[in-house]
Amino acid sequence: MTGGTPLRTLDEEDVLARILPLLPGSQALDVAPGDDAAVVQTGARTVATTDTVVLGRDWLDAWSSGADIGHKVITQNLADIAAMGGEPIGVLLTLVADPELSLEWVVDHAHGLADECAAAGVAVLGGDLSSAPAGVVMVSVTALGRLEGRPVLRSGAKPGDQLAVCGSLGLADAGLRLLQAGRAERHTEAVARQRRPRSPLDQGPRAARAGATAMLDVSDGLLRDGGRIARASGVVIEIESVALEPDVAALAGALGETAALDCVLSGGEEHSLLATFPAGTLPEGWRRIGSVRSAADGEPPRILVDGHAVAHTGWDHFRPD
Amino acid sequence: MTGGTPLRTLDEEDVLARILPLLPGSQALDVAPGDDAAVVQTGARTVATTDTVVLGRDWLDAWSSGADIGHKVITQNLADIAAMGGEPIGVLLTLVADPELSLEWVVDHAHGLADECAAAGVAVLGGDLSSAPAGVVMVSVTALGRLEGRPVLRSGAKPGDQLAVCGSLGLADAGLRLLQAGRAERHTEAVARQRRPRSPLDQGPRAARAGATAMLDVSDGLLRDGGRIARASGVVIEIESVALEPDVAALAGALGETAALDCVLSGGEEHSLLATFPAGTLPEGWRRIGSVRSAADGEPPRILVDGHAVAHTGWDHFRPD
Repeated sequence: MTGGTPLRTLDEEDVLARILPLLPGSQALDVAPGDDAAVVQTGARTVATTDTVVLGRDWLDAWSSGADIGHKVITQNLADIAAMGGEPIGVLLTLVADPELSLEWVVDHAHGLADECAAAGVAVLGGDLSSAPAGVVMVSVTALGRLEGRPVLRSGAKPGDQLAVCGSLGLADAGLRLLQAGRAERHTEAVARQRRPRSPLDQGPRAARAGATAMLDVSDGLLRDGGRIARASGVVIEIESVALEPDVAALAGALGETAALDCVLSGGEEHSLLATFPAGTLPEGWRRIGSVRSAADGEPPRILVDGHAVAHTGWDHFRPD
Repeated sequence: MTGGTPLRTLDEEDVLARILPLLPGSQALDVAPGDDAAVVQTGARTVATTDTVVLGRDWLDAWSSGADIGHKVITQNLADIAAMGGEPIGVLLTLVADPELSLEWVVDHAHGLADECAAAGVAVLGGDLSSAPAGVVMVSVTALGRLEGRPVLRSGAKPGDQLAVCGSLGLADAGLRLLQAGRAERHTEAVARQRRPRSPLDQGPRAARAGATAMLDVSDGLLRDGGRIARASGVVIEIESVALEPDVAALAGALGETAALDCVLSGGEEHSLLATFPAGTLPEGWRRIGSVRSAADGEPPRILVDGHAVAHTGWDHFRPD
């Protein structure tokens, strides 16, 4: 992140002049970045979410380029829009950085942001640039989306529903473990997914139209996120491990069986979509991995694997591991 | 910010359980914080802006409480919505903090955020909580608003327009200078304004309805922000210093004439509204401080005081003063 041209040698306007031309606009954007605020065509209801990544906690420069971080922070925000059944429209970007940060890192980062936004058909609405103490680099994104029908909440899962996932499980966490172990070559797809996660954004609105009763994106691991649906809905979710065998098998060669299963059950940053649907056919692209039932007398809402409670890890921001 | 109960001793969910009940909701809010994203009733066009404050750069704990910072960061964001002619609806809040930060600071901060949002009739839509390296505390806000008519841009000032301001000039900067000099008792109103700036939010949409041709809020000083209107509009703005005499007089007793004038011309963080209107009557609450004319042959768009170019300072984020 250092080396090259430090930001401190430039005016804020010089930095913006390098970044703004890279960022995609949109026909939905009535007022482009540069005024006090952006004006965007949204529709009557707007979906809004925000998420932040911090150097040293959410990424290491040894493992991720500025462009990688741009891709990642956009994906994790847009996944939250999709998980409500929304269609992303635009993002606001904040960079708070040590003035020693290089312009070259910032430009590379802006390319990553821009590519991911363009791929999703999303405009950059505005942003903010601020200086931070030595060593600090922080990127914060707010994403806005439009919602045609009803939002799909975490709280709508019903007994008798099926639990389904769209996308991979455990790949991003496996990539992180391999980077930590210095064995990235063992599973290059997993490492690439850790650097640039993918979320099936189109599938959020599609699941909503298909009648999904609850939905979220897998940010903190299948067990932890599935447990959130169970608690918000007041139900028990039963995962069938046989349905996860392909996910585990895809990672076992690189990590061993135990770590592979742990990645699939508890791996965060995957940004696949997890949803419950009424019994019957699932939309194309989704696969069943379990079911929803009522809690028995005195049983708390929870998530089980083959009928057993499984201790889960997953990330907590303030409590050290 | 330290002392008390460090955040690291708490789960993220424990912290949220302390904060969320303090924050105001709204009937416009279809989905409350806690799901993947918020859903809010906006209208067909949404105004969006984001702004960040960082401990040590934007505030010092010796001078500002957590509640003060809450008030300030909300005001500066909502002022940007008002400056487009928009009416604020909601905010998304991000706190990125050293895990040694005390829960007591965070709760105090949440009270400041909540009070300022409630006063403006604005809901808290969602947010994010992340840990940061030692000593770092950063608060980022994204504000959303609705826009009934056309947005008021910086670029619409026309020759023959009058330049007008709604609100004070220089007060917040005077307060900062007095805090820096250890002489807060010399002008307690200015010091209070530095800690908790005020913006005439209702006057943004009112100015838009009254035909304002350009508008912004005074974030970086009258000369710097007025210069932005001049450049964006391709005009020359002439400030009449006689119109600023009451502003200077209000500060001269505490600071002396020279510093008082400097605060009025260059003081940032004021968040008063600055706008251009066609000749004629101004809306109530606005006062004329100058006029707009065409640039002469070869003259660049610029801002003048009594016909003279005045060197202005004002804040640049990456270049040290």
